[in-house]
Amino acid sequence: MEAKQIAGGICAPQGFTAAGIHAGIRKNKDRKDLAMIKSSVPCIAAAVYTQNKVYGAPITVTRNNLQDHHAQAIICNSGNANTCLANGVEIATEMCDLAARSLGLQREDIIVASTGVIGMPFDIQPIADNIDQLAASLSIDGAHAAATAIMTTDTVPKEIAVEFEIGGCQCRIGAIAKGSGMIHPNMATMLSFITTDAAISPAMLEQSLKEVVKDTYNMISVDGDTSTNDMVAIMANGLAGNKEITTTDADYQTFTAALRQIATVMAKKIASDGEGATRLMECIVTGAPDQQTARNIAKSVITSSLTKAAIFGADANWGRVLCAIGYTEGDFAVDRIAVSFSSAKGTIDVCRNGAGIDFSEEKAKEILLEDEIHINIDMGLGSSSATAWGCDLTYDYVKINGDYRT
Amino acid sequence: MEAKQIAGGICAPQGFTAAGIHAGIRKNKDRKDLAMIKSSVPCIAAAVYTQNKVYGAPITVTRNNLQDHHAQAIICNSGNANTCLANGVEIATEMCDLAARSLGLQREDIIVASTGVIGMPFDIQPIADNIDQLAASLSIDGAHAAATAIMTTDTVPKEIAVEFEIGGCQCRIGAIAKGSGMIHPNMATMLSFITTDAAISPAMLEQSLKEVVKDTYNMISVDGDTSTNDMVAIMANGLAGNKEITTTDADYQTFTAALRQIATVMAKKIASDGEGATRLMECIVTGAPDQQTARNIAKSVITSSLTKAAIFGADANWGRVLCAIGYTEGDFAVDRIAVSFSSAKGTIDVCRNGAGIDFSEEKAKEILLEDEIHINIDMGLGSSSATAWGCDLTYDYVKINGDYRT
Repeated sequence: MEAKQIAGGICAPQGFTAAGIHAGIRKNKDRKDLAMIKSSVPCIAAAVYTQNKVYGAPITVTRNNLQDHHAQAIICNSGNANTCLANGVEIATEMCDLAARSLGLQREDIIVASTGVIGMPFDIQPIADNIDQLAASLSIDGAHAAATAIMTTDTVPKEIAVEFEIGGCQCRIGAIAKGSGMIHPNMATMLSFITTDAAISPAMLEQSLKEVVKDTYNMISVDGDTSTNDMVAIMANGLAGNKEITTTDADYQTFTAALRQIATVMAKKIASDGEGATRLMECIVTGAPDQQTARNIAKSVITSSLTKAAIFGADANWGRVLCAIGYTEGDFAVDRIAVSFSSAKGTIDVCRNGAGIDFSEEKAKEILLEDEIHINIDMGLGSSSATAWGCDLTYDYVKINGDYRT
Repeated sequence: MEAKQIAGGICAPQGFTAAGIHAGIRKNKDRKDLAMIKSSVPCIAAAVYTQNKVYGAPITVTRNNLQDHHAQAIICNSGNANTCLANGVEIATEMCDLAARSLGLQREDIIVASTGVIGMPFDIQPIADNIDQLAASLSIDGAHAAATAIMTTDTVPKEIAVEFEIGGCQCRIGAIAKGSGMIHPNMATMLSFITTDAAISPAMLEQSLKEVVKDTYNMISVDGDTSTNDMVAIMANGLAGNKEITTTDADYQTFTAALRQIATVMAKKIASDGEGATRLMECIVTGAPDQQTARNIAKSVITSSLTKAAIFGADANWGRVLCAIGYTEGDFAVDRIAVSFSSAKGTIDVCRNGAGIDFSEEKAKEILLEDEIHINIDMGLGSSSATAWGCDLTYDYVKINGDYRT
């Protein structure tokens, strides 16, 4: 059963407030660039980080701060990634200090994140000058402002909240995310902050987050580039009053299902708002010999530049899908593969037993001109499945990335 | 010492003739679509093939025909890949039969290759109707026509020949290639046919080819998509009269150096003529802890969509280079990495010890606006190096691939 979607984003769970302002990290005064999220009480916290060996200083500092599995606030800027800078860790630590001072917390209670250009000198002054104003503007209505302040080339803010019951208590989970470019499976490669008022132990929170991330945030790709900075962090403050989740029992399953629901929606939002994207591609692999192979194949297809360009052109070029399957690691037989395309306009079979079949190009075009395209692949071998999300490759992707810094 | 470049392409080595015609596989009568290369005497032959698990029927048939390490002619069509077809092997075999009959050879003497759209029904009739005319037009002046007939979205035919001495005998190697899209390291992912009149044993020819391919044809990427069809094949007819190369002696080294020279030129030609490309990117990694890591890093950088788009925009966005290094497999320290960009206009250092340094954006722009851009990466760790070639990611790549079939 799906959890009920509710309003309020990251402030829907009890005890959370948020804010987002223009502090001056970006030159454009119309763009917010600094976000804060705070819980009224200390939280259990967990996070997953980029697997890029070149990672931002905020990753170092947050990882360190979360060693005790506790946090109470998040500070995040856009416009500068604080990555590949000699004084990066110093700056990220200073951001924590500034946030902690303005909130009356300890430095170690802060999760810090940055997103933007890599290697650009980072001026901390705009943050120092505006942190008190940011803290003062924290409110239960600030979720949207925070969602907006973490955006880079995103075209829309991404937020969601759901409500569900654990042992008779109403619990909530809320999330914001930013994505757009440099999005590629291998953890993160985007930022997402998740709040919940459910009571859950550090070990169970971490397990739940990791379990969900591998099927959601890790199954999207915009351009195959694994970013240096990105993280998914979750804070649980326990204010819902449920009996604390301490084992993988039914309550854990309920919590994890709700978290999965949230993370799936965020993943799709990120993929469909990929840089320059006009279409969301969802690749659903079934009949795979094992889970890892299913994942690899789904990711390979949504990452293929040629497939992505074909989807932009609404071209039923299933040969490129087969090609992308073929260069995936794993053991499988090509002559059992079946492929179909589907959308709101219906489904069309294009390949069976690894070979093309007759189909109406006209009908295929009609299906592929929709905003959300499913590429369905049956490997015909086993019972494992996986889903991955990506977007088409467009002129605008090239335009956005051909001159991002200027 | 470099071997001397000479005219004549694949017909520069003694005993080779070639031809290329419009047979009617393509609808456009102005486009040649069928190529033939023949040696007057039987040849030692070797080939390397795509590692995609979905591979064209010609790969199956050629691999089978070359089991005896002998061949005497090549037949290759463009316009249809003969891949993912239920009757693909039948068609590729029939292409060999037709070529063999027209040349008075055996089916097993033929190397067959196809390039073009995957999964499109293949009509053999245009080949059957025109094979005798093709064979009749074989000539020493036909290299260019053959180079043209194997093109797909290539904008220029790619050919080269060199001359060198082994034991007082003049030897020659010639090559043609086609590339453009779906080019990504993992063997081949392009077609290249190489001819030589050097005398060399089957084992040494194969070893030399494999040794060279891993540093040349396997070090290029246009879009990260490993093709289904591609191969590099070499035929050696021994007409130069040198003492047959049977061990890895000085003669072997001379031969391999010449082959490497040819293959390097072809690899660069393929990369710089990538679909929609406006610039050749050469990534030179030095100071790596081992050869494989050097190769992986160089390939990762030239494959990164974000780096490719930045090069299109002549944007010295070295952060993306660091990012692409960072997600490469291998063990290395980020804080020792130095990066510079160079071209005919000079060199500019942009990153030292893994962090940005001050540089003139104006000078960087001047350097990056050239046609051939070098990205120089010193890992600061060891003595291994590698070079990879790619191209920028442009509007035209998207345009070409957004509607390739129509």
